[in-house]
Amino acid sequence: MAYVLACLTQIQNGSDGITVKARGNSISRAVDVAQILTKRFATDIKIAGIAINTEQVKSNITGSMSNVSSIEIKLQKGAP
Amino acid sequence: MAYVLACLTQIQNGSDGITVKARGNSISRAVDVAQILTKRFATDIKIAGIAINTEQVKSNITGSMSNVSSIEIKLQKGAP
Repeated sequence: MAYVLACLTQIQNGSDGITVKARGNSISRAVDVAQILTKRFATDIKIAGIAINTEQVKSNITGSMSNVSSIEIKLQKGAP
Repeated sequence: MAYVLACLTQIQNGSDGITVKARGNSISRAVDVAQILTKRFATDIKIAGIAINTEQVKSNITGSMSNVSSIEIKLQKGAP
């Protein structure tokens, strides 16, 4: 809900578009945020695009590189 | 990896398109599956579309309804 509030604040401040990004296990939370925003709080906001990707992240413990999935959900005010 | 293997099997059997679906916390795993498939095992397969949605799920414990986010990742053979 903190993320939802942060997005709503940005919209109230006149922003037309927001991008919600997340990596790894937080991906499902980013989807939740986008869904709560568009379905409950700001029905004039639509999902303009979703992209998924892979990022290389260095492990703090072993120092080795590992691949982590990421998501970017673009939300747009008044998009069709 | 079991899901990746299941997808690969379907492709080998002549399927042109697969849809990976997940709900709730498994959403990030669906993204992982799609990324591993397209980047490592089947580079001729591209992501044709991603949709997110909200589903009503009845709790087994309390019997009440709750909203759960879901994702659908469409993978297509030879898509642009």
